[in-house]
Amino acid sequence: MYKLVIHGTYFSSVDENHVQSIENALICIGDSGQVELVLSSSDPLFEEELARARKQDILEELTDSQYLLPGFIDLHTHAPQWAQAGLALDLPLEKWLNNYTFPLEAHFADEDVAKAVYDDYVQKLLSLGTTTALMFGTIHLEANLMLAKIAAKYGLRAFVGQVVMDNPDQTPTYYRNVDYGSALSLTEKFINFMSEMQEKTGATLQPVITPRFVPSCTDEALAGLGELAKKYDLPIQSHVSESNWEHQYAINRFEMHDAEVLDSFNLLTDKSVMAHGTQLTVDDCSLLCKRQTAIAHCPISNMYFGNGVLPVKSLISHHHKLGIGSDISGGYSPSIYHNLRQAVGSSQMLEDGVDSRMNPQERGRDNARITMANAFYMATVGGGDALHLPVGKIEPGYLADFQIVRDHPPVIGQKSSDDIFQRLMYSTEEKDIEKVYVGGKLVYKKVGE
Amino acid sequence: MYKLVIHGTYFSSVDENHVQSIENALICIGDSGQVELVLSSSDPLFEEELARARKQDILEELTDSQYLLPGFIDLHTHAPQWAQAGLALDLPLEKWLNNYTFPLEAHFADEDVAKAVYDDYVQKLLSLGTTTALMFGTIHLEANLMLAKIAAKYGLRAFVGQVVMDNPDQTPTYYRNVDYGSALSLTEKFINFMSEMQEKTGATLQPVITPRFVPSCTDEALAGLGELAKKYDLPIQSHVSESNWEHQYAINRFEMHDAEVLDSFNLLTDKSVMAHGTQLTVDDCSLLCKRQTAIAHCPISNMYFGNGVLPVKSLISHHHKLGIGSDISGGYSPSIYHNLRQAVGSSQMLEDGVDSRMNPQERGRDNARITMANAFYMATVGGGDALHLPVGKIEPGYLADFQIVRDHPPVIGQKSSDDIFQRLMYSTEEKDIEKVYVGGKLVYKKVGE
Repeated sequence: MYKLVIHGTYFSSVDENHVQSIENALICIGDSGQVELVLSSSDPLFEEELARARKQDILEELTDSQYLLPGFIDLHTHAPQWAQAGLALDLPLEKWLNNYTFPLEAHFADEDVAKAVYDDYVQKLLSLGTTTALMFGTIHLEANLMLAKIAAKYGLRAFVGQVVMDNPDQTPTYYRNVDYGSALSLTEKFINFMSEMQEKTGATLQPVITPRFVPSCTDEALAGLGELAKKYDLPIQSHVSESNWEHQYAINRFEMHDAEVLDSFNLLTDKSVMAHGTQLTVDDCSLLCKRQTAIAHCPISNMYFGNGVLPVKSLISHHHKLGIGSDISGGYSPSIYHNLRQAVGSSQMLEDGVDSRMNPQERGRDNARITMANAFYMATVGGGDALHLPVGKIEPGYLADFQIVRDHPPVIGQKSSDDIFQRLMYSTEEKDIEKVYVGGKLVYKKVGE
Repeated sequence: MYKLVIHGTYFSSVDENHVQSIENALICIGDSGQVELVLSSSDPLFEEELARARKQDILEELTDSQYLLPGFIDLHTHAPQWAQAGLALDLPLEKWLNNYTFPLEAHFADEDVAKAVYDDYVQKLLSLGTTTALMFGTIHLEANLMLAKIAAKYGLRAFVGQVVMDNPDQTPTYYRNVDYGSALSLTEKFINFMSEMQEKTGATLQPVITPRFVPSCTDEALAGLGELAKKYDLPIQSHVSESNWEHQYAINRFEMHDAEVLDSFNLLTDKSVMAHGTQLTVDDCSLLCKRQTAIAHCPISNMYFGNGVLPVKSLISHHHKLGIGSDISGGYSPSIYHNLRQAVGSSQMLEDGVDSRMNPQERGRDNARITMANAFYMATVGGGDALHLPVGKIEPGYLADFQIVRDHPPVIGQKSSDDIFQRLMYSTEEKDIEKVYVGGKLVYKKVGE
């Protein structure tokens, strides 16, 4: 009847502000990979289903120190940059791009390079509990298809972007689309190949319209990508007002804000995900909210390149669509856990301000702090909503994208369910993630488990 | 002739701004636990020493993906709070203290509790590459001696504080010294027991004069502790201007700044380490610098409780003594690697400002960003200098406190020595730390290695 039944304690968001802990539950997963039934231990059917699952040998029993969590959605990452994670963060943006990032991405013209890096990266994501990722590729069609193929092989739900960057003023000669026409034609080819691959494999492989960011693209490319998104009803990803420089660039070139430029090319839709947004004005945010465009909050990367902290608390209170992104390699860590921690910490720094020479009343922003429950919601339900994918919750109708993590309870002290949740969020590292499921299928198992 | 010879590539600070990488070196460690000789591969003695070490079976050969680093010095941590690491960080300080921290510390009246928590914590520190720690204990003599004993057992260099907190206005009835007289007498007993234990074990076990912080102590306790520090020529640890609240408290009670209060009780010496300091004024910093008092920078904890970022770059340029502290459990992570990453990120946030509603020119602080080399220096040489201990460098005359870590080179791409250094600093987790030595003695070996 089911393909997998999990017996144990789980955490799942109720809403933006609340996480629930259900102890000793049975989570029953059907052949489609969806959760069909969740039974509490007081349910009359509980013992019968438990016994049946045991008999059918489809039962996964959690130990007392194991917990079930939804898999994370990484809502913004540059897959090729995995090869330079943690490098060059002491350099200014221009050197980071020209001495490291662009030369690295240019190497992905070589399919062997793509295969080696993407094989490693996709496995790393799964081992960190990330079950869905919205990824930039490069400008290379074959490499991007390789990324999708590898994602399907290992079981990651993959949203992959064929990057467009054709503006000669803002891109190096060795790493640029020939012109807007070839960029658009490559994107359309990519869309078609991806559809074929999705049909063939049955995996979640979604092509994504991907203007690198406004500065990298000509007007014609931006316009053409807006049309392709409409024609094929596709998700869109890009960056918006990521830094002082990017925010000002749009004003200089278009006499409009970055968000308005994207909107003018029909690139802000309810399937769009825009990364960073640290320099968005209140009006810009309203525009994104009106278009139901999500923001991928990248808290680690924003420390280095954001020139400010995204006011997440305010966006939540305005019901903005929000998720969490690692932004490899503007952020150094592929772990969504690490990004959750930084999201909370950075929000406190926004509330308190940073420069103690200023008066405490003047240097911070009232009511900016988010809770770990807020951050967890963003990394699970928020990411799923942004991608129109039923993932991020443990309840019937959602896909069974899960991680099983080991807690390290202290030798003495607290053990309320909120304490356990906090400790899991603040201390889980790769070594503590023991099994990962996508659609009820085991896609990662820690060595030695 | 030597007790251990290590053959491989190492990183060690040259000065505050520069890290050197020496490839294929021989590090020769004498019976005293000190490095006696470092030979480069071009040295005429190299081959001879290598062969001799191999013959004597005292050679540790690093593989191509292993690197030798100095062990880290954690310059500020509360050992008992290990039992609540990662908990309650969503709460305001008062609830964090009264609902979690004080009740937890009060449990250390029970020696079994102390034994269990400290046994776990000391092993955790070593497994993270921390070879020396300056630690707050609790107000309980037996528990503090237990911490020292356990540190000696596992080989951690331990600076342990018998905490004094006797001010009824700022401490709960269930967790407070009876009065200043008994607090001082306990401290003196602790000093004497520690001297005995140090003599008996030969380990680095240093008693530390430890007023919790100015608010927790009566004038008499502060004065008495200043006298004890002088009488026994001991290190001193406390907190200084950790938050807006603490900074203002001293002004309200003494009409002086927190640093001036400490100084007036002779608690700022060249053996003092004061934690946090985020709200110190320029004059306060000058006073600490004049007294040669070190600041323990706790970047993760400061996100939550600091109300601002310590201006490390400016302090470095004024040759201030600085180290890195995890501040368990104000900070959630015992990993100095995690704290190094946050130190760099927070400094960038100080430079850029956080609230994008303000003008970029007004919201940040010019020239505040530190490099990873700065942070590494603080966690190694800086910590050693603060404690007057010859640790933190790999060179003759320094103690052989080392960690061997495994790099994960990317499948393609850069491999300059600076790239390797950056990657090690930004990506090393507990699972990558393979062996740890203190004084040339193996004190930790990763399971499975």
